[in-house]
Amino acid sequence: MSTARAAVLVGPNNIETWEVNVPEPAPTGVLVRVVVGGVCGSDAHIVTGDAGVMPFPIVLGHEGVGRIEKLGVDITTDYAGVPVEAGDVVYWAPIALCHRCYSCTILDNTPCENSRFFEKADLPNWGSYADFAWLPPGMAFFRVPNHVEPEALAALGCALPTALRGFEQAGGLRYNQSVVIQGAGPVGLSAVLVASLSGAGEIIVIDGNEKRLETARGLGATATVSLTESSAEQRIEDIYALTGPSGPDVVVEAAGILDAFPEGIDLVGQHGRYIVLGLWGAMGTIPVSPRLLTTKNVQINGATFPKPKHYYSTVQLVARCQDTVPLSSLVTHRFSIDDAGAALDAIRTGTVIKAVIDPSL
Amino acid sequence: MSTARAAVLVGPNNIETWEVNVPEPAPTGVLVRVVVGGVCGSDAHIVTGDAGVMPFPIVLGHEGVGRIEKLGVDITTDYAGVPVEAGDVVYWAPIALCHRCYSCTILDNTPCENSRFFEKADLPNWGSYADFAWLPPGMAFFRVPNHVEPEALAALGCALPTALRGFEQAGGLRYNQSVVIQGAGPVGLSAVLVASLSGAGEIIVIDGNEKRLETARGLGATATVSLTESSAEQRIEDIYALTGPSGPDVVVEAAGILDAFPEGIDLVGQHGRYIVLGLWGAMGTIPVSPRLLTTKNVQINGATFPKPKHYYSTVQLVARCQDTVPLSSLVTHRFSIDDAGAALDAIRTGTVIKAVIDPSL
Amino acid sequence: MSTARAAVLVGPNNIETWEVNVPEPAPTGVLVRVVVGGVCGSDAHIVTGDAGVMPFPIVLGHEGVGRIEKLGVDITTDYAGVPVEAGDVVYWAPIALCHRCYSCTILDNTPCENSRFFEKADLPNWGSYADFAWLPPGMAFFRVPNHVEPEALAALGCALPTALRGFEQAGGLRYNQSVVIQGAGPVGLSAVLVASLSGAGEIIVIDGNEKRLETARGLGATATVSLTESSAEQRIEDIYALTGPSGPDVVVEAAGILDAFPEGIDLVGQHGRYIVLGLWGAMGTIPVSPRLLTTKNVQINGATFPKPKHYYSTVQLVARCQDTVPLSSLVTHRFSIDDAGAALDAIRTGTVIKAVIDPSL
Amino acid sequence: MSTARAAVLVGPNNIETWEVNVPEPAPTGVLVRVVVGGVCGSDAHIVTGDAGVMPFPIVLGHEGVGRIEKLGVDITTDYAGVPVEAGDVVYWAPIALCHRCYSCTILDNTPCENSRFFEKADLPNWGSYADFAWLPPGMAFFRVPNHVEPEALAALGCALPTALRGFEQAGGLRYNQSVVIQGAGPVGLSAVLVASLSGAGEIIVIDGNEKRLETARGLGATATVSLTESSAEQRIEDIYALTGPSGPDVVVEAAGILDAFPEGIDLVGQHGRYIVLGLWGAMGTIPVSPRLLTTKNVQINGATFPKPKHYYSTVQLVARCQDTVPLSSLVTHRFSIDDAGAALDAIRTGTVIKAVIDPSL
Repeated sequence: MSTARAAVLVGPNNIETWEVNVPEPAPTGVLVRVVVGGVCGSDAHIVTGDAGVMPFPIVLGHEGVGRIEKLGVDITTDYAGVPVEAGDVVYWAPIALCHRCYSCTILDNTPCENSRFFEKADLPNWGSYADFAWLPPGMAFFRVPNHVEPEALAALGCALPTALRGFEQAGGLRYNQSVVIQGAGPVGLSAVLVASLSGAGEIIVIDGNEKRLETARGLGATATVSLTESSAEQRIEDIYALTGPSGPDVVVEAAGILDAFPEGIDLVGQHGRYIVLGLWGAMGTIPVSPRLLTTKNVQINGATFPKPKHYYSTVQLVARCQDTVPLSSLVTHRFSIDDAGAALDAIRTGTVIKAVIDPSL
Repeated sequence: MSTARAAVLVGPNNIETWEVNVPEPAPTGVLVRVVVGGVCGSDAHIVTGDAGVMPFPIVLGHEGVGRIEKLGVDITTDYAGVPVEAGDVVYWAPIALCHRCYSCTILDNTPCENSRFFEKADLPNWGSYADFAWLPPGMAFFRVPNHVEPEALAALGCALPTALRGFEQAGGLRYNQSVVIQGAGPVGLSAVLVASLSGAGEIIVIDGNEKRLETARGLGATATVSLTESSAEQRIEDIYALTGPSGPDVVVEAAGILDAFPEGIDLVGQHGRYIVLGLWGAMGTIPVSPRLLTTKNVQINGATFPKPKHYYSTVQLVARCQDTVPLSSLVTHRFSIDDAGAALDAIRTGTVIKAVIDPSL
Repeated sequence: MSTARAAVLVGPNNIETWEVNVPEPAPTGVLVRVVVGGVCGSDAHIVTGDAGVMPFPIVLGHEGVGRIEKLGVDITTDYAGVPVEAGDVVYWAPIALCHRCYSCTILDNTPCENSRFFEKADLPNWGSYADFAWLPPGMAFFRVPNHVEPEALAALGCALPTALRGFEQAGGLRYNQSVVIQGAGPVGLSAVLVASLSGAGEIIVIDGNEKRLETARGLGATATVSLTESSAEQRIEDIYALTGPSGPDVVVEAAGILDAFPEGIDLVGQHGRYIVLGLWGAMGTIPVSPRLLTTKNVQINGATFPKPKHYYSTVQLVARCQDTVPLSSLVTHRFSIDDAGAALDAIRTGTVIKAVIDPSL
Repeated sequence: MSTARAAVLVGPNNIETWEVNVPEPAPTGVLVRVVVGGVCGSDAHIVTGDAGVMPFPIVLGHEGVGRIEKLGVDITTDYAGVPVEAGDVVYWAPIALCHRCYSCTILDNTPCENSRFFEKADLPNWGSYADFAWLPPGMAFFRVPNHVEPEALAALGCALPTALRGFEQAGGLRYNQSVVIQGAGPVGLSAVLVASLSGAGEIIVIDGNEKRLETARGLGATATVSLTESSAEQRIEDIYALTGPSGPDVVVEAAGILDAFPEGIDLVGQHGRYIVLGLWGAMGTIPVSPRLLTTKNVQINGATFPKPKHYYSTVQLVARCQDTVPLSSLVTHRFSIDDAGAALDAIRTGTVIKAVIDPSL
């Protein structure tokens, strides 16, 4: 059995490069050679321990694009039924579904109650900061068309499936609806992209970082609002001037900070929908005025943990728009497996739009 | 022109009985002789001034069942197209729609932006604490089948249309879903009734008043939880023991107090829906944990101001269930027009399930 | 390895009782001792060959209630996450899902593209006309509460999950909606039961067999229309007299004959929904007037192949209503495994409401 | 009182130009000076009598863009609540709603049961082949932004609101879904435009006229299929090659001929939706195979008679896309009021994409 490298988090803020065994795929699984492993903001929280105690040692990385190294003996297709063979590029959902719990079977929804984010680093492992990812049975992967650039797919990472899920859960987005997006990190930028490609009318993005706002405009935002130059009152006034007096049809929370929540409730228009995507990691409480929900007939949709189909849709979407939207240029930083720690440091500085681990470096 | 009585609020806590002119109906309106005028909890807030400054003097009462005294010259049917004539019993929605504003025409939703709750007491008037109600053009009224008891219709008042709207706005209720209802006032009892008639599974009601909980059980609640004998933690534990570990499918807020809101978010199950009906009058803010919305994929639906069709459905529902559900017995107190002040005092004591103004007294 | 009996269809109209090996369960499968195997109308078509060429020899039976004989070594729960152990009664969906095809993963819907109805009779087998059913990995089964009578669950067989799926696919059924059901076989009776438990208003059933219509009334039909005593024009007139001039909100096709289709389109009301459940086996074409779909704004929903969750809901529904609805009495005939041929003959005579195979006979 | 011209249909195929009185607007109506009156395919059917007996004499024309000549004394806004004054350009829905029938009030849907298409030619009249259109109370009109070209709005006429309604009724269109459109007349082209602006994936148009197919490509069709050069079997094969094996997500019928209906049912993919827009005028029946609806879990949505909000959305959509989509160039022919007969002749030849009546000629 050969070995290969993996960036292993052995304890809080302690990353090592290990040589690990390269396992055989399970009969209905697949072994993938990683092309790029996406560095996600949540990885930074995992490394520091902010995201809770982890089952150390673990291989980092839940976003990945790779090439099939070896297919399990019992499978010949991806999870959409498309034939695959060794050498094909695939994109995967990082959580295997059990299809045997109440959420999977009865609610037809994610997260699966038996979700496992990590496997011990010395066992066959799906972490993507590594030369190889071993995708277990139930971990959906999808064939990526040949013309798709892996960087375009990695550019928004798991944020794009998250945005797709959010819009779907809230009943979809119709042509010409006005959308306000709180935050221009990967989730917010993904919402901008989806809204733009869906023909949304005004697409207004709020963020405190001018570079991110500029990126948002490049992906289709029709207006941007600087957090640093406006009060909450001013923002509402400015945004209602753009949307008309009944206000935004949809507000998307992609800020990840508690203060965004009451502001989103204030912002959303009459009979509007508020899609909350970023607050899964925002511990604590924040005061809100629930009466606004009734007087405006507002619907709030919390959403997280995309389904496999949202990863599939991500592949389709990127395949269609990579030539007209500068997706791959969002990948501003590349790091080797050995430099995983530096990658996570870079994420924290805010200078990065998207960083990836490139095992070929 | 003849005159008749009306209970007029001339200023905060100052109710007088006036003799007012009995007007002719507008060409597409109707003049109704009031059979019972419902006393709603919000009337109590209006009288004290808690609900904001009113355009005094006003005729009280927005819930009513009456007989057509005279139809406008240009109409022959009710708002569902059913032929009507003088003497027929009708039930009405208390707000005329303009059909010319953004909410009415483009959003297809209520409240109408030109809603008017009250007209000056000396003008033709639709207040129901009176001998006659003059329903203006656009104020929907519906023929009540002959066998329906006016008290059965008045029993839950505008609370029943409110509950119907709430469930509809949240996508409907399916057979066997589990429902938790916060509060057993008229809105909560209406939610119990609708849930029960819709085949909901567990219907669990939380309230601090044992008499109300008993009434809830009479309308179909399968379990009740006393606020006074339990902590919030205990309530969650008890309720999850009844619904199973994935928790309630639907939680309905009908408590009208801020504390109910975070408890509702805690209570609602995985992928559940939280319907907020009662908080339209709860000024102020309350701390909540928005991350629960994302980790549980919760949908919150604020709802208020039923549409005319929900008043129509109320008539249909009462017509079908009045023989099997003890609706008319919910009317525990009757007052004359002259005793409108006493009626409102009674509401505040909590001994009343439902009080009505009966002009024949 | 021990052996047990199974009714094997070795060719068209040729049923034999075989002694087959009793297999060990797969690691994530289960071996079930059959308590009752339901005899479904489609079994009669399979036996004659009307339903197409079958992979003979096959074990008959796709409906079943049984007791866990032995659990696979890797599982401890049913497909809703409920702990199970040997001796527990379970109910199962007869088709294992692959969770790896376009329908399963991307459309989130059934039928699975890799559906397999039958396995060769000499291999581990899930056919229910047998002493044991071997449920493979992916074939969902659910714990049946102790107080549920197996006959009550078997009474409507796979028809009840089918009706549940149909209503769900059409957006659900709301309290007080009027429903017309074409046909009072198991699918039609299931639709009656679901409509009744969901609080539907008028529930009108059309059939040519008075005994079935009587059964329909026992399950909640508010009116029945005899096919033999009425013309199509008369039926429309009679039904609209019951529903009012805008017609039925929902029509359910459960007749299985082509003529029902244009009649259903004629029957359905303005903005109504037509749910087509029974025509999956009706080969051939029938003339319809498509303009009616546009002038009435009708929605037609074809539906078949329930999801596992509809089998789960069936268990819940039967558990709740078996004491108030005479479900188990619908099982009018019981046959031993050896008499499977007689069971199928009985089905064809029309004297049976529901027949079951009882391996204890 | 002054007079002005109107093209009056005095009997089948008999059009005269009349001088009619210019009426005052009703208190809540408006008098509009017509800028362009659209010539719709259905007008050609009305003129010949194919569309049924008409209440002759009638003023032709139900599509119009005009300038407010005089507002009713009681109104100051359009039907979306936007302030308007004399001189403003407006676009209107050609049917006044009663807001008092079962469809309007209870079903919240169109068509209104009291719809009136025409008024006698000698009475105040909303026909648009005229110098002035008198819009009665309840006939929704919307302010057109100053930069919008009247021809761009007239280009697709009532077909664009029809397409918008159809997609909405079928639950909306999501980014990347594949759409097949049967027919490239105004309704089909409108569906192409909406699909394209909504980010649909493959947009495949079927028609027998190459010029129309070319126009469809100009509006966003990604592929076109010639009816004259293909068999129905070949079309399915070609289309499935483009959409993948699960077939089109959505098929839109905009052909108006009966043969399209069974072909649409054949074409629509697994779990797909079929939106029927054009068959309202196709008398007669056509054989279909209803079993396909069940085996494919298909939803069919008939739709016609857009709501006022779809006319409003049309204005918004045209305002946003007229600079990037060559809408106004679709108006290929202009006729004076006196030449209304020639306009209708031209429509019948098939050389016209869109003709308008221009009262200034």
